[in-house]
Amino acid sequence: MPRYDTITFLSDYGLADEFVGVVHSVIRSVNPAVTVVDLNHQVPTHDIRSGSLSLVRAASYLCQGVVLAVIDPGVGTSRRAIAVEVGEGASVLVGPDNGLLAPTVSMCGGAGRVVELTNEAFHMEGAVGETFAGRDVFAPVAAHLSAGVDLADLGPAVDPFTLKPGLIPLAYEPEEGGCLVTHVLWVDRFGNAQLNVSPQDVTEIADLSGRSPRLTVTIDGKARTATIQSTYGLLASAELGLVIDSQGLLALAFDRRSAADELGLAAGAEVTLSSPR
Amino acid sequence: MPRYDTITFLSDYGLADEFVGVVHSVIRSVNPAVTVVDLNHQVPTHDIRSGSLSLVRAASYLCQGVVLAVIDPGVGTSRRAIAVEVGEGASVLVGPDNGLLAPTVSMCGGAGRVVELTNEAFHMEGAVGETFAGRDVFAPVAAHLSAGVDLADLGPAVDPFTLKPGLIPLAYEPEEGGCLVTHVLWVDRFGNAQLNVSPQDVTEIADLSGRSPRLTVTIDGKARTATIQSTYGLLASAELGLVIDSQGLLALAFDRRSAADELGLAAGAEVTLSSPR
Amino acid sequence: MPRYDTITFLSDYGLADEFVGVVHSVIRSVNPAVTVVDLNHQVPTHDIRSGSLSLVRAASYLCQGVVLAVIDPGVGTSRRAIAVEVGEGASVLVGPDNGLLAPTVSMCGGAGRVVELTNEAFHMEGAVGETFAGRDVFAPVAAHLSAGVDLADLGPAVDPFTLKPGLIPLAYEPEEGGCLVTHVLWVDRFGNAQLNVSPQDVTEIADLSGRSPRLTVTIDGKARTATIQSTYGLLASAELGLVIDSQGLLALAFDRRSAADELGLAAGAEVTLSSPR
Repeated sequence: MPRYDTITFLSDYGLADEFVGVVHSVIRSVNPAVTVVDLNHQVPTHDIRSGSLSLVRAASYLCQGVVLAVIDPGVGTSRRAIAVEVGEGASVLVGPDNGLLAPTVSMCGGAGRVVELTNEAFHMEGAVGETFAGRDVFAPVAAHLSAGVDLADLGPAVDPFTLKPGLIPLAYEPEEGGCLVTHVLWVDRFGNAQLNVSPQDVTEIADLSGRSPRLTVTIDGKARTATIQSTYGLLASAELGLVIDSQGLLALAFDRRSAADELGLAAGAEVTLSSPR
Repeated sequence: MPRYDTITFLSDYGLADEFVGVVHSVIRSVNPAVTVVDLNHQVPTHDIRSGSLSLVRAASYLCQGVVLAVIDPGVGTSRRAIAVEVGEGASVLVGPDNGLLAPTVSMCGGAGRVVELTNEAFHMEGAVGETFAGRDVFAPVAAHLSAGVDLADLGPAVDPFTLKPGLIPLAYEPEEGGCLVTHVLWVDRFGNAQLNVSPQDVTEIADLSGRSPRLTVTIDGKARTATIQSTYGLLASAELGLVIDSQGLLALAFDRRSAADELGLAAGAEVTLSSPR
Repeated sequence: MPRYDTITFLSDYGLADEFVGVVHSVIRSVNPAVTVVDLNHQVPTHDIRSGSLSLVRAASYLCQGVVLAVIDPGVGTSRRAIAVEVGEGASVLVGPDNGLLAPTVSMCGGAGRVVELTNEAFHMEGAVGETFAGRDVFAPVAAHLSAGVDLADLGPAVDPFTLKPGLIPLAYEPEEGGCLVTHVLWVDRFGNAQLNVSPQDVTEIADLSGRSPRLTVTIDGKARTATIQSTYGLLASAELGLVIDSQGLLALAFDRRSAADELGLAAGAEVTLSSPR
């Protein structure tokens, strides 16, 4: 009887090559009974932070099971390949120990058992090259885990405190006060630019005198006014919004247009929020 | 016993974010037995017409079951979320009431029972924000339907005549006659530009004297000659074709080159067909 | 009982239209029990060579079963539609006879039985147009094969020696000797440019005096030095590598940057390897 019936798969492999299909095939060769759910394969190449954020945004909505996450610029070097139990074994995260899994592990209440994936009995036999650990190490391990292999059989235990932490920027109030320096965590397909602040974080600086709370948004020295809204369609046609998005964070948005394009924003950009004069 | 074993899923979520994967996961959490078929997630953002055309092109070839279609610029506003039975309950379409489903409903013989999805017992519990109805309303409802929940349990009945109609442009003969004003419905990956006319619509104006029927094609005032062909490979190397495509409509095409690129065409463009002099 | 439980699907249909979804749906209508693994749908349009290389790279890692491969610029013309058994019937390849399948057939030990897919009893009934053989011929045939239909029922036997060969460029030593003229087979999402030579092919010209073997790489008349490495992370920050990739071939690469972008390389480009002076 399989222990997990779902493998959720995230990578930076893209969809223009056969990487993702090959990983599916390898999993299916080991455990034909498991279902693979593709979470996202178009994480920017080598972008561990972007991948870790994509995973953590999805985490509360994922089926229990194995999570296979491969953004692995250090493939073939000394970085460890690991599997991390969370939720008292309800799920296991499999991937490189480079910070990619860390925010999701934290969000799930921290690591339970952790192992380093050194037992080659559960890797691809006769694999060629050292550059495709998704195919040769992570996929076979995820499939064996789903088929009931115990974590402890995959390799030696790792102290969870030695895992590489994730690096997610925190918004902060600068010394001179009066404003909040935030960062764009994510620009989605619609051009909405998610910031690392929630509505609760801005209650002290927002102007609550109008129908909707208002803030001054400063990007590259240019100040604009934005209103906090619950959805895009409540914005007037040229009105900049800080929409409470599907993670409960504030996202810079226009109605049916790309805020990222119009404001010149990309992930990592700094955005200052302050009280309108 | 599940009532439907397939959910066919179309959206404008794209594949660069985790939206599609999260929806798969939500469906699987409710009904692990159902198979999700991804129809198309790269409909241009907010483009209801384009999405409705993609769905209607596929409709005759889809498995019976639930169709989950989410192009939803009005998410979180007063637009209704609906489920529409077609084919005497053989299939159910789930999505926003904004015209997206209308052409497919018509093609399937019209709406049977229709309900508004207001019963929150079948929505995501504790969902954050109001901007991701695909995750919070449509996916759980589609999954519950597939698992055997009756339409009537999802919310109050809606009069089918109050549904928002689709808007698909019709080709027309202008007052002065002698030609047919058509529109590009779709430019596919190969650059073929599908028009809203079939070969039958042009029998009166086509020149049938040669080996293949010929028409004059006028785009932005520039006239070219095109021949009607059954497939791309029958076109000579620089010959413009009106190829009878996989929907039985005429598509402007070249052999192994993009007609849209060469003629500067996009969806919605006007193309006039007339008799060659 | 189904004969094959997996259909692996490769095409140049892209993901911006509903082509792939429709093919999934058609397969599922014929055989709901079969699992479809998407290998790659973003092969450049009409690019038979690129598709054949994507398939052959994956071949050793695929589940046994039916392989459905559709890159078909000659659709609707006299090119044959075929099914080819390999591995004594362990797998069957279905697609157009245009060279697409040939390298994989060779790699799997050559063709067993081959048939031309002329029996319309196993095609889509009432299909419209002649331009979408993936939907109307190849997908239904693949699904019927997976459901247990015998190859011989699909159409008349074809002599394997009449199949169109694949065209994969071979590296060669020019008459004057002293170097190896190679070609870029593939540029992957990361910008690594795979050459058609393995480390064994260059042992005679490589300089083995240093810590890592070195070669001179000449592109468009410009010579650079590259070192052979087992993975990307072993390269210094501006060091050009010839990394032994996941096929065991040498790929031009930088650490975390695109070699293809920096060197101006695309599939088909000529790269000369020689001994460093």
